[in-house]
Amino acid sequence: MAKVHITDLVLRDGHQSLIATRMQTADMLPICSKLDAVGFWSLEAWGGATFDACVRFLREDPWERLRKLRKALPNTPIQMLLRGQNLLGYRNYSDDVVRAFVQKSADNGVDVFRVFDAMNDLRNLRVSIEAVKAAGKHAEGTVSYTTSPVHNIPHFVELAKGLAEMGCDTIAIKDMAGLLTPYTAFELVHEIRAATDLPIHTHSHATSGLAHMTHLKAVEAGATIIDTCVGAFAEGASHPTTQSMVAALAGTEYDTGLSLPLIEEISAYFKEVRKKYWQFESAFAGTDTRVLINQVPGGMISNLANQLKEQGALDSMDAVLEEIPRVREDLGYPPLVTPTSQIVGTQAALNVLTGARYKSVTNEVKLYLQGRYGQAPGHINEEVRKIAIGDLEVTTCRPADLLGDELDKLRGEIEGLAKSDEDVLTYAMFPEIGKTWLQERAAGSLKPEQLLPPAAAQQDNGPRYAADEFKITLH
Amino acid sequence: MAKVHITDLVLRDGHQSLIATRMQTADMLPICSKLDAVGFWSLEAWGGATFDACVRFLREDPWERLRKLRKALPNTPIQMLLRGQNLLGYRNYSDDVVRAFVQKSADNGVDVFRVFDAMNDLRNLRVSIEAVKAAGKHAEGTVSYTTSPVHNIPHFVELAKGLAEMGCDTIAIKDMAGLLTPYTAFELVHEIRAATDLPIHTHSHATSGLAHMTHLKAVEAGATIIDTCVGAFAEGASHPTTQSMVAALAGTEYDTGLSLPLIEEISAYFKEVRKKYWQFESAFAGTDTRVLINQVPGGMISNLANQLKEQGALDSMDAVLEEIPRVREDLGYPPLVTPTSQIVGTQAALNVLTGARYKSVTNEVKLYLQGRYGQAPGHINEEVRKIAIGDLEVTTCRPADLLGDELDKLRGEIEGLAKSDEDVLTYAMFPEIGKTWLQERAAGSLKPEQLLPPAAAQQDNGPRYAADEFKITLH
Ligand SMILES: [Co+2]
Ligand SMILES: [Co+2]
Repeated sequence: MAKVHITDLVLRDGHQSLIATRMQTADMLPICSKLDAVGFWSLEAWGGATFDACVRFLREDPWERLRKLRKALPNTPIQMLLRGQNLLGYRNYSDDVVRAFVQKSADNGVDVFRVFDAMNDLRNLRVSIEAVKAAGKHAEGTVSYTTSPVHNIPHFVELAKGLAEMGCDTIAIKDMAGLLTPYTAFELVHEIRAATDLPIHTHSHATSGLAHMTHLKAVEAGATIIDTCVGAFAEGASHPTTQSMVAALAGTEYDTGLSLPLIEEISAYFKEVRKKYWQFESAFAGTDTRVLINQVPGGMISNLANQLKEQGALDSMDAVLEEIPRVREDLGYPPLVTPTSQIVGTQAALNVLTGARYKSVTNEVKLYLQGRYGQAPGHINEEVRKIAIGDLEVTTCRPADLLGDELDKLRGEIEGLAKSDEDVLTYAMFPEIGKTWLQERAAGSLKPEQLLPPAAAQQDNGPRYAADEFKITLH
Repeated sequence: MAKVHITDLVLRDGHQSLIATRMQTADMLPICSKLDAVGFWSLEAWGGATFDACVRFLREDPWERLRKLRKALPNTPIQMLLRGQNLLGYRNYSDDVVRAFVQKSADNGVDVFRVFDAMNDLRNLRVSIEAVKAAGKHAEGTVSYTTSPVHNIPHFVELAKGLAEMGCDTIAIKDMAGLLTPYTAFELVHEIRAATDLPIHTHSHATSGLAHMTHLKAVEAGATIIDTCVGAFAEGASHPTTQSMVAALAGTEYDTGLSLPLIEEISAYFKEVRKKYWQFESAFAGTDTRVLINQVPGGMISNLANQLKEQGALDSMDAVLEEIPRVREDLGYPPLVTPTSQIVGTQAALNVLTGARYKSVTNEVKLYLQGRYGQAPGHINEEVRKIAIGDLEVTTCRPADLLGDELDKLRGEIEGLAKSDEDVLTYAMFPEIGKTWLQERAAGSLKPEQLLPPAAAQQDNGPRYAADEFKITLH
């Protein structure tokens, strides 16, 4: 029996990290029979930014993708990444929408739900985790790893215990920025193992060049599932190469038992696929260790650079990079991940570009300071709160408790265009682009974003923008 | 006190692995004061293919480079890579040339000599190691790591013991192909530590994505010096990023004590430098795990591909990749590194392209089968030897024992052109291009290879050939 299991990320996080989530379903299906034969613990293939990218750019039906993958992968659990009460959108949804979304995801093919919250506020995870269990599926509760004066191992262990109490089947340690060092990972896994009985699953982006070592030490401490990506979509902003981790563990007590030549065949297939999407390659996707110094994730740095460039303000980059940790401190040290990375990054840019801190405050920061994203890990700077929201009420309850049921209302709004509950949920995630998508589907006019021909590859290798980028708008 | 020391490779192996050894001295000097301030155990900055590239492409005096670096790096030992009795050339040299070369290298600034032999034949290392000690410098004896039916841990431990007996100050484990897995590294380091008292220094190319983990486990087993490269010239065919390894070990008992921000500054400098050399970037320099299956190092694969393409025989690639391990077996499993990688690769290609194995045999293979490169680790295929060299005598002595003193003869040959013993040694390394270089220097007509302008970068990103490539010649 294999002692360590592998979740391969090529169908979701791999292309999300390296080609702006642009891989089309048609490029996934031909290799599914081989992917299905490897024996992965799961294939992460849905959720995250893929839903958005399907609707916005590829003009595909994300639910249809899921059904096709389910059929093409009869032997391998399909895993999705779910942003707790935010589902796959960018706001809090009411509990009835959350329950419906989870149930429909399960019905269409998701087996493993990795559920996280950008604030690590467990209240934002409870309903979706309950819904996963109600659907009879695997609930993976997630600890979003970050570093700050208020984040330490006991803090993360408490979160893991909370997730275990909610009935999670596994615990994921999600290191989205590549900040988790190998020996900290060892200690963290060891302590969570001691505090819960659950299998531990590690997810660590290779951005800073630590992830391979982090997985290895996590495994030595008892983690039994690790996230990797087949070579063609691995490394840098993505994840450790599957083949490398399989080879590293082969012949040891942690042997994965997976076939290297089979994975190499799959990688060769994806190497060709990747070439088609050359226009979405980013010059910022390689190993970038700056996050180890300034704690600003690589993806934030590249998006910021692009946005500042558009505003003709690239010379403010260093000032913005210095402002980000200060804004994060003011907001009580949220982990930087969708959507908090956008919230913090945009406000930091405004603080620099307007010439005065919090002279202009984004709506998202205002909502954040009203407690509408949940509870911050640390203390909010009350002076900043005063400047930003004045005497507006601050919520201390679970944000979604402020929302009544929404599903019927949403159904009503999109009646006629929505042919199914799945369609309603697509609309719920993205009211504007979802509605446009449904309209164009009805009109038979859905047109996928055109890929530039391979011949043009030499002309323009500039970075493109990912679906989860943030816009700096001066207002 | 730092428990783990770092040798940074950016001035030698980093650019040798990623931009065909083309970095000019003028691009090294401006950053030397910062490099010198980091506190590296050593900076690998000379030897390997740099000598060849200086003379052949950059039209620089390699000795002059060494003197300039020595002056610019007053506080950091300069390390070189020396191919034992082959020095920096491609044949065996007589002992008097070896002694002179080592003494002149020491005189001009080398402090640490890493000495290896492609066959791991200790007799090929003895004279150069003695010469290093006679010059009062640090001798690092090298075990060239590979995998084969005749290579196992006791074999490598015996080699390390032999190196210790020769008076080496440290033992390097040189994993040129990225084949060393982390847990094998642990065992190997542990066993060598048990058998010798010497500090262990690990060198592992990141080609297969194992090197970070391999260093980490080597350190846990007691290795105290690891080779890394500042980020701008790291990863893939090169080495683990210095910043990543420093961060991985920070705060542990293995803490290197080095400053991340300072190394990041250096990396930012080299990131700009690298752009100047875009024409030498290779599409094959990323992580490539195929070596884990076919044991053929990444550099060999890319060179082979280029050569076969030139011959219009790229469709023979798979056949050649399958033939390489067979030729290596016939030759008694030499490690694949300069020059054995060329010898085996070229013969394998000939075996495929001529349609019959050993129908055409290279001169190098003939010499190899006569014992002129030293003793093979395993048994030679006697049938192949018979076909290739018939009844020619097979040497069992140390190959250089067949050579009389050469230095005076070389001096005579290049009299007038050579202004110093260093010049004579340049001529000795490369009789043709060395002589041309001396002639052009005399005539004041030395012209460095032109770098293409940055504007042309979009036009042609094709791979270029490294100085240590091999040519497949049908004859
Ligand atoms: Co991720
Ligand atoms: Co090397």
